[in-house]
Amino acid sequence: MSARAHKLINRPDTIVDEMLEGFCAAYSDIVQLTDDGLITRAQSKAQGKVALVIGNGSGHEPAMVGWVGQGLFDVNIAGEIFTAPGPQRIVDGIRAADCGGGVLVCVSHHAGDRLNAELALELCEAEGIDHVELVILYDDISSAPKGQEAERRGTAGLFFVWKMLGAFCEDEGDLAAAKALAEKVRDNTRSLAMSLSSCASPITGEVMFEMADDEMEIGMGLHGEVGMGRQKALSADETIDLMLPPILEDLPFAEGDEVLVLLNNSGSLTLMELFILYRRVAQRLDEAGIKVYRSWLDAYATTQEMAGFALSLCRVDEQLKALWDAPANGAYMKQI
Amino acid sequence: MSARAHKLINRPDTIVDEMLEGFCAAYSDIVQLTDDGLITRAQSKAQGKVALVIGNGSGHEPAMVGWVGQGLFDVNIAGEIFTAPGPQRIVDGIRAADCGGGVLVCVSHHAGDRLNAELALELCEAEGIDHVELVILYDDISSAPKGQEAERRGTAGLFFVWKMLGAFCEDEGDLAAAKALAEKVRDNTRSLAMSLSSCASPITGEVMFEMADDEMEIGMGLHGEVGMGRQKALSADETIDLMLPPILEDLPFAEGDEVLVLLNNSGSLTLMELFILYRRVAQRLDEAGIKVYRSWLDAYATTQEMAGFALSLCRVDEQLKALWDAPANGAYMKQI
Repeated sequence: MSARAHKLINRPDTIVDEMLEGFCAAYSDIVQLTDDGLITRAQSKAQGKVALVIGNGSGHEPAMVGWVGQGLFDVNIAGEIFTAPGPQRIVDGIRAADCGGGVLVCVSHHAGDRLNAELALELCEAEGIDHVELVILYDDISSAPKGQEAERRGTAGLFFVWKMLGAFCEDEGDLAAAKALAEKVRDNTRSLAMSLSSCASPITGEVMFEMADDEMEIGMGLHGEVGMGRQKALSADETIDLMLPPILEDLPFAEGDEVLVLLNNSGSLTLMELFILYRRVAQRLDEAGIKVYRSWLDAYATTQEMAGFALSLCRVDEQLKALWDAPANGAYMKQI
Repeated sequence: MSARAHKLINRPDTIVDEMLEGFCAAYSDIVQLTDDGLITRAQSKAQGKVALVIGNGSGHEPAMVGWVGQGLFDVNIAGEIFTAPGPQRIVDGIRAADCGGGVLVCVSHHAGDRLNAELALELCEAEGIDHVELVILYDDISSAPKGQEAERRGTAGLFFVWKMLGAFCEDEGDLAAAKALAEKVRDNTRSLAMSLSSCASPITGEVMFEMADDEMEIGMGLHGEVGMGRQKALSADETIDLMLPPILEDLPFAEGDEVLVLLNNSGSLTLMELFILYRRVAQRLDEAGIKVYRSWLDAYATTQEMAGFALSLCRVDEQLKALWDAPANGAYMKQI
């Protein structure tokens, strides 16, 4: 059992306000907090660029506050814990982001996030704010079968979309091209997550779901959504041998492909474990004739102290490799 | 209880070999693994620079594997879990690092690390390897009283030494100047840690020490060394109000000083909590007339899935500020 009842907060109802205040104070060279609670870039940006906006429930830090900055998002709208921000706040974010090149609102596919973003677009239309587009992003192969990709959830693999889309919008393209690029990365990305433990809600202190010490679950969502069922906890190599093949088969990734790899720590997994897991991923991809271009092993989208990880692959061509390697400077995403 | 019995490893006796293999495969653009298990830079470096070497027990990732790279360490010698590497391996590391400017061996002060490094220096002398110096570094105010600083433990605050010393050695200075710089940063750094939970040994799966759900301990070391005793777990603000004053008094940090701040996640604390904790640190420093130059909130030196953090402050002048801002490119320490 890894859930932790006592969290170092002050009051459940001030968590989000206080964490945004602390985050923006710590990284004031990169981000600033507006009077209405939006996170925007501290550094100036090119006028006329396509602006990138994302709203999300809090409790998954560093997603997405850590991804505002040069070569990344223009504005993040942080909702309450595990709750998408409402449509009016998204409109506020769109207004704050717009610098003349249109605004692309990015949605990691969950029912609440999508609904609120769609309502925000209707509000924009009613208020005469144009040049706003929505892109719905998903990557989790466990949440809907192949052929029904558009019903899948967004999880940690959207990491690849954010990075490359951010680079793309920094110095080229119009709104339609940006949306097409996001969809291109999405359509080349597949992810699968697993968990060894639950976590405690920061609001109530209660465990979010029950899980035995010797169990694991493959396919769990970012909020503990049910996956492919419980099973006996396996070793590192056995776990990868179970998770990698369905990812490869889904796209499918094939011999000769070049890929980016993400092992996202969902909370309290150790880097020690991620390194050992990655060793097996690298072995298996090598055997399959798939070449790894770059890898990233870190806690990017978390679910409190949940012990688990997501494995994500993104197939890349020369365009995507260049966008991946382009500079980025968010508080929790730096590319040199 | 946050300790987690099941870890995603393969076998206890292959943890370190497998994790180094995975780490170096994932970040092959930054590090390489030598045939004898040393982590060295993948990128070329200036001949004649002072080379920086550090050995440490494993299990604290990303320390120190994540700090090999441009503007940081030249060689890391990873020992077994929580066990310093032996003297002969340190000598191997010194040989691998040396590029004509001498070698500074950095030691985070723990009995085993110090003893092995001192024996390594004797071996160097016996083998005719000269221009090697040792610097002993410490920062934990809970481990020995003021006036006996040299008996204190090294903890997460050495972060500041590594970053600035790495920058210093990249393009200037001789061995004596490098050692003096390391001591200057050390002598301006103070840290204090706390923990809300224990963690499980990756070797045995056993909990390393017992701790109740509603308890916390101030002053715990990186391996769970005893601190200032158990107490009832407090809120975020109360915890900072307890920990910051003794740090400020110890140096002392005074009105008008400029500081760097580190909140180091020892494992499974959330960034959400670190942000809320930082908010109070920033408020209290502002009230004390102490100016924050830069902050860093992340998991830098961990103790498996322990839930806790260390608060570290480093007083900086213009020289140290410039060294802090100099570029760095380790897998887990990037400065743009």
